[in-house]
Amino acid sequence: MADAIETLRTSIKALVESKKYSTIRDILHTMNAPDIASLLQEDMPEEILPLLFRLLPKDLAADTFVEMDSDTQQLLIRGFSDRELKEVVDELYVDDAVDLVEEMPANVVKRILQQADSEKRAMINNILKYPESSAGSIMTTEFVELHPNMTAASSIEDIRKSGIEKETINNCYVTDASRKLIGMVTIRRLIMADPATRIEDIMDDNLISVTTMEDQELVAQQFSKYNLIAMPVVDGEGRLVGIVTVDDVLDVMEEETTEDIEKMAAIIPDGSSLPYLKTSVLTIWKSRIPWLLLLMISATFTGMIITGFESALAKYVILTAYIPMLMDTGGNSGSQASVTIIRGISLGEIEFADIVRVIWKEARVAVMCGATLAVCNFLKLLVFDKLSVIVALTICLTLVVTILCAKLVGCTLPLLASKLGFDPAVMASPFITTIVDAISLLVYFRFAMILLGL
Amino acid sequence: MADAIETLRTSIKALVESKKYSTIRDILHTMNAPDIASLLQEDMPEEILPLLFRLLPKDLAADTFVEMDSDTQQLLIRGFSDRELKEVVDELYVDDAVDLVEEMPANVVKRILQQADSEKRAMINNILKYPESSAGSIMTTEFVELHPNMTAASSIEDIRKSGIEKETINNCYVTDASRKLIGMVTIRRLIMADPATRIEDIMDDNLISVTTMEDQELVAQQFSKYNLIAMPVVDGEGRLVGIVTVDDVLDVMEEETTEDIEKMAAIIPDGSSLPYLKTSVLTIWKSRIPWLLLLMISATFTGMIITGFESALAKYVILTAYIPMLMDTGGNSGSQASVTIIRGISLGEIEFADIVRVIWKEARVAVMCGATLAVCNFLKLLVFDKLSVIVALTICLTLVVTILCAKLVGCTLPLLASKLGFDPAVMASPFITTIVDAISLLVYFRFAMILLGL
Repeated sequence: MADAIETLRTSIKALVESKKYSTIRDILHTMNAPDIASLLQEDMPEEILPLLFRLLPKDLAADTFVEMDSDTQQLLIRGFSDRELKEVVDELYVDDAVDLVEEMPANVVKRILQQADSEKRAMINNILKYPESSAGSIMTTEFVELHPNMTAASSIEDIRKSGIEKETINNCYVTDASRKLIGMVTIRRLIMADPATRIEDIMDDNLISVTTMEDQELVAQQFSKYNLIAMPVVDGEGRLVGIVTVDDVLDVMEEETTEDIEKMAAIIPDGSSLPYLKTSVLTIWKSRIPWLLLLMISATFTGMIITGFESALAKYVILTAYIPMLMDTGGNSGSQASVTIIRGISLGEIEFADIVRVIWKEARVAVMCGATLAVCNFLKLLVFDKLSVIVALTICLTLVVTILCAKLVGCTLPLLASKLGFDPAVMASPFITTIVDAISLLVYFRFAMILLGL
Repeated sequence: MADAIETLRTSIKALVESKKYSTIRDILHTMNAPDIASLLQEDMPEEILPLLFRLLPKDLAADTFVEMDSDTQQLLIRGFSDRELKEVVDELYVDDAVDLVEEMPANVVKRILQQADSEKRAMINNILKYPESSAGSIMTTEFVELHPNMTAASSIEDIRKSGIEKETINNCYVTDASRKLIGMVTIRRLIMADPATRIEDIMDDNLISVTTMEDQELVAQQFSKYNLIAMPVVDGEGRLVGIVTVDDVLDVMEEETTEDIEKMAAIIPDGSSLPYLKTSVLTIWKSRIPWLLLLMISATFTGMIITGFESALAKYVILTAYIPMLMDTGGNSGSQASVTIIRGISLGEIEFADIVRVIWKEARVAVMCGATLAVCNFLKLLVFDKLSVIVALTICLTLVVTILCAKLVGCTLPLLASKLGFDPAVMASPFITTIVDAISLLVYFRFAMILLGL
C-alpha cells in the first residue's frame, strides 16, 4: 500500500511537470479521501499542493482536507482565497470543523469562523465550550430529530428534506416539546413500518445516553458494551444536544489505548495526537524525562540497600552475580501481573471490589511460577554454576519470595490507584520494578544472613 | 453501575423466593441485553437462571444470550428443551451463532446445528471454514444485495420485504450478474434519491473491500482509517460473500490491543477472550511462565559479566551499589523507545522504511535524556553520596552510553521484527531490558577499567 502510494506520488510529480492536469484529476477522482491525503501531504513540494487540491471536486476536497495533518491544513488555508476557504468549510461536518478549529493558530481560526455561515459558527462555538475529552467535545450537533406524533411517512419526508445535511441518519432521535430525549428509531424501522404508524408506537424508549460532561473513555466503553453505532448526548436537564458517532469513537479508542500504553511504559502522553514521526525531539524528551528522573532517584534506595550490605557482599562476591537475575525476574513477574490488572480495569472487567479475588488468584499463580523457576534455577546453579547447595538455596528461596511479592504488589497497586482516583496505568512495570528491586534485595540479604551466617 | 446491578440482583433473588414473577418480568423488560446478561450470569443460583431467562421476550432473550459468557450459555442450553433452543437460535444473527458454535463443546454444537433451519446451518458452516482471526471468520453472510438496474423505489421495496432479517441495512451492496461486487449505496442515499433513479447512477463504485483470508487486525485498521461502519468481504474472484460490521470491529480492536499489551509485558496471549476473573490459575501460569523462564536464563549473561569482573568489584565494592540504578534506567529508557515504536507500527504510522528517521530521532532524544540524567546524577553523587569525581564520572558516562544504546536497541528491534514477519510487540520492555542489562554492565566495567585503572 505504502509502496503503491510512493509510485503514484512519483507519477503525479511527473504529470505536474508536463502540466497534464486532466490526467491527474482523473486519477484523483478514483481515489478515497484518506489515500489522497497521504498522497498529498508527504514528500510533495509545497508549491504544487494547492494546485493539486484544486483539482478535487468539492465534496472530495472537504473529505480529503479532514484527513490531512494540521501542518498541511494550515499550509492549504494560507494559500486559499476566502471563497475557496468558504467552499471547504461549508462542506465540513460540524464535528470535523471543531477538530480543525481546535488545532489551528488563532489568526487562522478567525478566518475559518468568518467564512462559516452563522448557524455553523454557532454550532462550532457551542461544541468548543466543552472540556477536552468530554462527550460534548466529540459530539456533533447535526442529527435527525423526530417528534412522537409524527408518522413513519412524514418522518421519512422530513429526513428527505433535511437529512442531506446530517452526518448520520441511521439513528433518528425522538424528543418531546421541551426537547427532552424520549426515544430513538432506526431508519430501518422507519422504512419497514407501515407509513401511517406513529413514531411513538415504533420508537425504542429504552435508550443509552450520556451527558455532555461524561469522559470520552466511558463513552467508548458504552459503544463497545452495547454494540452502538451512535449515542445521544444530553444536557443536565435531559435535553438532546448532540450525538456521538462510531467513527469518532474508533479514534477515541485508539487515542485512549495509546495513552494507556504510554503511561505503562513511563511516558507522559503529550496530549497531541501527532504521529511519532511528526513529533519534535523536544516534545518526546519532555514526555520521557520526568519518569526517568523520578525512577532514577528512587533507584537510590536499592543502592543504599547494597551499600548497607557491602561488607557481607565483599565476603561472598558471588552473590552479586545473581542480583540482576533476581531483579529482572521480579520486575518481569510484577509487570505481568500489573499489566493484566490494568487492562482488566480499563476494559471494565475488574474493579476495586474484586481485590480479594484478584490477590488470591495472583498468589496461586505466583507460587506456581516461583516453584517452576526455583526448581529450574536450582538445578542450573548446582550443575552449571557449581555453587554449593546452601548458596543455591539462598538464591532460589529469594526467587520464590520475590516473585510472590512482585505479583502481589503488581496486582494491588493498580486497584488501589483506581480506588483513589488515579490512573491505574501509571502503576505499571517501571514503577513496580523499582519497588520490587528493593524488596528482592532486602529478601536476598536476609536469606544470606540466615543461611550463610553473614 | 456495578453497585446498582448488585442491589438489583438481591431484589430479584428475593422476588424469586416470593414467586413474584410478573414483577421480575416487568423489571427485566426495562433493561438492556448486556445489563441483563451481567445481572443473570454472576452470583445467581444456577437453578433459577433458566427460570429468569424464560421471563424474557423472544428477541431480548436472544440478545441477552449473545452477551453471556460461554459457561452460562452452556448451562442454559443444557436446561433448554429443543423448542426453547430453536427459539433462541432462530433469533440469533449468523455471526453471533458462529461465535456461539465456536465456543461450545461438540455435543452442544450438534444440538444447536440440529435446531437451526437448513439455510442458517449452511451459513454457519460456511463461516466456520475460515481460519480464526480472518475477515471471513468475523463477517456475517446476512446483508442487503441490490442490482445496478434496480430503481431506488424498487430497492427500498426489496429491503422492506427482506431487510428485517439483515443485521445491518445501512449500507446496501450492489453486485452484477456473476455476484461480483461493483458498488455500494447507503440507505440514506436511497431515501434521498428520486424514486425512479437507477441504482447504478447513485452507487459509489470506489469501494474499500477485503478478501475473506485477510487478517482481522488489518480489517480493523481500515475501518479506523476510512471511517467505515461496514465493509464488504469478497472471495478470490471478487464475488461478494459477506460483510463485516463495526460492532464486531470494536471487539476485534479490543482483543488485538489486549494481545499487544500482553505481549509487551512478556505474557503469551492464551487465545481465549475470557475475562481475567474467569481465567483459571493454570491458564494464567501457562501464559506467563515461558517468558519468565527464558528471560531468567538469558539473565545468566549478566551474571557471567559480573563474575568476570569479580576481582575488580571486590576492590571497588561501591560500584556494585549503582548497578541496579544503571540497569533500571537503561531498561526504562529502552522500553520507552520500544513501546512508542511498537504502537506506531500497530497504528500503521511507522514502517521499516522509516528506520533511518526513527534512529536519528531516537539518537537525539537519547542524548538529551542522557545528558539531563547524567548532570542530575553527577551532582547527587558528589553532594549526597560524597563519591570522588572520578567514580562519579565513571557512573555518569556509563549512564549516557547506556541510555543511548537502550534507545537505539529499543527502536530498531521492533522495526526489524516487523520486517522479518515477527510480531513487533514481543520486542518490548522485558526483552530489551535483558539486552540492555548486559550492555550497561559491559560499558560500566569498561569505563571503570579505563578511569579507575582496575
